[in-house]
Amino acid sequence: MVYNFFYYICDRRNYNLIQTKQMNNFVFQNPTKIVFGKGTIAQLSELLYKGEKIMMTYGGGSIKKNGVYDQVKKALEGFTVIEFGGIEPNPDFDTLMKAVDICRKEGVGFLLAVGGGSVIDGTKFIAAAVEYQGDEWEILTKKQIPNDCLPLASVLTMPATGSEMNSNAVISRRATKEKFDFGSPKVYPVFSILDPEVVYSIPKRQKANGLADSFIHVIEQYLTDDINTPIQDRWAEGVMKTIVETAPKVLVDRPDYDSCANYMWAATCALNFFISPGVNQDWSTHMIGHELTALCGLDHGVTLAIVLPGTMKVMREPKKAKIIMLGKNVFNITAGTDDEIVDKTIDATEKFFQSLGIKTLLSDYNIGDDVINEIVRRFRERGAVLGEHGIVTYDHVEKILRSRLA
Amino acid sequence: MVYNFFYYICDRRNYNLIQTKQMNNFVFQNPTKIVFGKGTIAQLSELLYKGEKIMMTYGGGSIKKNGVYDQVKKALEGFTVIEFGGIEPNPDFDTLMKAVDICRKEGVGFLLAVGGGSVIDGTKFIAAAVEYQGDEWEILTKKQIPNDCLPLASVLTMPATGSEMNSNAVISRRATKEKFDFGSPKVYPVFSILDPEVVYSIPKRQKANGLADSFIHVIEQYLTDDINTPIQDRWAEGVMKTIVETAPKVLVDRPDYDSCANYMWAATCALNFFISPGVNQDWSTHMIGHELTALCGLDHGVTLAIVLPGTMKVMREPKKAKIIMLGKNVFNITAGTDDEIVDKTIDATEKFFQSLGIKTLLSDYNIGDDVINEIVRRFRERGAVLGEHGIVTYDHVEKILRSRLA
Repeated sequence: MVYNFFYYICDRRNYNLIQTKQMNNFVFQNPTKIVFGKGTIAQLSELLYKGEKIMMTYGGGSIKKNGVYDQVKKALEGFTVIEFGGIEPNPDFDTLMKAVDICRKEGVGFLLAVGGGSVIDGTKFIAAAVEYQGDEWEILTKKQIPNDCLPLASVLTMPATGSEMNSNAVISRRATKEKFDFGSPKVYPVFSILDPEVVYSIPKRQKANGLADSFIHVIEQYLTDDINTPIQDRWAEGVMKTIVETAPKVLVDRPDYDSCANYMWAATCALNFFISPGVNQDWSTHMIGHELTALCGLDHGVTLAIVLPGTMKVMREPKKAKIIMLGKNVFNITAGTDDEIVDKTIDATEKFFQSLGIKTLLSDYNIGDDVINEIVRRFRERGAVLGEHGIVTYDHVEKILRSRLA
Repeated sequence: MVYNFFYYICDRRNYNLIQTKQMNNFVFQNPTKIVFGKGTIAQLSELLYKGEKIMMTYGGGSIKKNGVYDQVKKALEGFTVIEFGGIEPNPDFDTLMKAVDICRKEGVGFLLAVGGGSVIDGTKFIAAAVEYQGDEWEILTKKQIPNDCLPLASVLTMPATGSEMNSNAVISRRATKEKFDFGSPKVYPVFSILDPEVVYSIPKRQKANGLADSFIHVIEQYLTDDINTPIQDRWAEGVMKTIVETAPKVLVDRPDYDSCANYMWAATCALNFFISPGVNQDWSTHMIGHELTALCGLDHGVTLAIVLPGTMKVMREPKKAKIIMLGKNVFNITAGTDDEIVDKTIDATEKFFQSLGIKTLLSDYNIGDDVINEIVRRFRERGAVLGEHGIVTYDHVEKILRSRLA
């Protein structure tokens, strides 16, 4: 079997063994159909097969206030639909297992996620768990994916995670304060509907998180070593520039359609693997951030905005060429020595998160040494190596987190 | 039925009715699996299904000199393979119909194109024609695609057309001096193998054509009107910058692996629809160029390099904002008034083609008024409208071609 790009994310330990100074060999395939634009939710009825029993999954009910629920229900007239609401942010294993039980009992044949990344990620887990023989938590801990997963699709209501066009999912387990990801080509959405008008009613805090999350998805696939991959680099920069330039227009109370559309497409392109074929990837900021969410309940986007400036400072030497490239091509920082450009770029990155209204220090959230110690303990216990080529050790994790204390 | 992006290319007349000043609604789906890198041809045996009778198509035999034929045959040991060689540049309807006959008689179940754009395009036509009921030329003239097309895959030997990762094909008919395109999601390659090492032995003239062709594929999807699509624009610029910067390193006798890899990925990304969702598209330079090939036998890349500077000059007003964007972001032209930047950008574009060793005037090829008159007559007879929003009339076509006389 050829290795597939999703292993870059879900199996970092193998991935990290690959050392290269030129474009890596890669396999790329992303089969998801994107239906993008105004009024596209009505096309659901043409995209779905009648005859299958559909489970429609959603979150805490915001879709009932912003009109999306009504649009979906109207498009699904004549279909057999079981609703499963209440999937929480950082979707919980125990919640999702209730949906799995219903799918098994009712013979559900297709899953339709109506929501943001948490709902879509949770639905990917349901798709894999329904047919899993054994303890379903192993899908996360042992990366065991059954051969048959239920097909799924999505109506995206919150641009942020890219889950609508990728094969990854992150699942939490509140009972044990754990948070893990898994990925498999079997859980790509068959299609995803992206109507930028859903952005109008998203609360500012969620938009800020989505902008930070999308930006850092790109960073994880870009800010490693420079191995002469100009297309991937220019594309990554194009997504980041768009996020930085669009952010102020998206954060106003009722943003214009153009800004919503560009933000929405940016968030998808930030993690649909278009920018990552053949490049080295990091993901240490995400791994550390996941622990902050699991232990302290912080929003995912917030944890990334806290951790990333630390990752850039502590890993500045191996990432130097790319930090300078980021500064020049995204933040227009060209004056000064290389070291000065690095300093200014790290500063500009942190200031961008602050411009979204996100506080970027652990002390802003009353998080201190005890949490840092627990996170380092967990990574040590798991024997985890993080970052491109496994260069981020638990010593680095500790330094990164301590640099974010105050 | 939702409209699909391939209609942008294969059905310009409908497409041109869409007028917009913001990102268009779009449907995107590209299912082709790309297997990219050194030594990947050997993976053929894992990618193909045993049991199907495979037709292996190729061109004039260069693959027998550069080692690709041997690599493919070795990987296909144990498979049932019928060879069909001799597909010419600008693949001919009559040649391809011979392959169609063999497929029907032998019950071929899978097509493997080993070659460049002409071989892959020709193989797409074979895939569609085998099951076509009626005059197979109607696939081109009436855009009639049968419901069942044979599945196909490719081993790319010449980066240029992007056919290895798109759903389009251009077919010629020497008997009537015609050249038409067609497109359908049914003819996406199932997979394509891209080993950059095949570039080492490509003759300089072919590499020059491939670089020009790829550059102008991007131009056709970029140089229209500015409708606030920053990701698509930055990505288009990223591909063009990579082509411009890599070209001199690719044109040397035995280029380095990095340059070959970046050139190869650029040519694929130039026309795999990653840069085009929601943007307006032109394709008038291609339509005019096709006629020059059909009537005078010029290389495809050469015809585009001749026509494009004329298109930019004659359509400079509606394309002004994007020509300036091209100048600034690809050729680093920032000084001067807007009109001066436009002039310099058109000049830089033509000089880029000349730097590849391509002569860019009709007089360089002894082509004069008679050919221009025939091309204009053909467009008039077909009632064709060209360009974004149908803004390129036959009067414009005449002006464009006359501007390229000397």
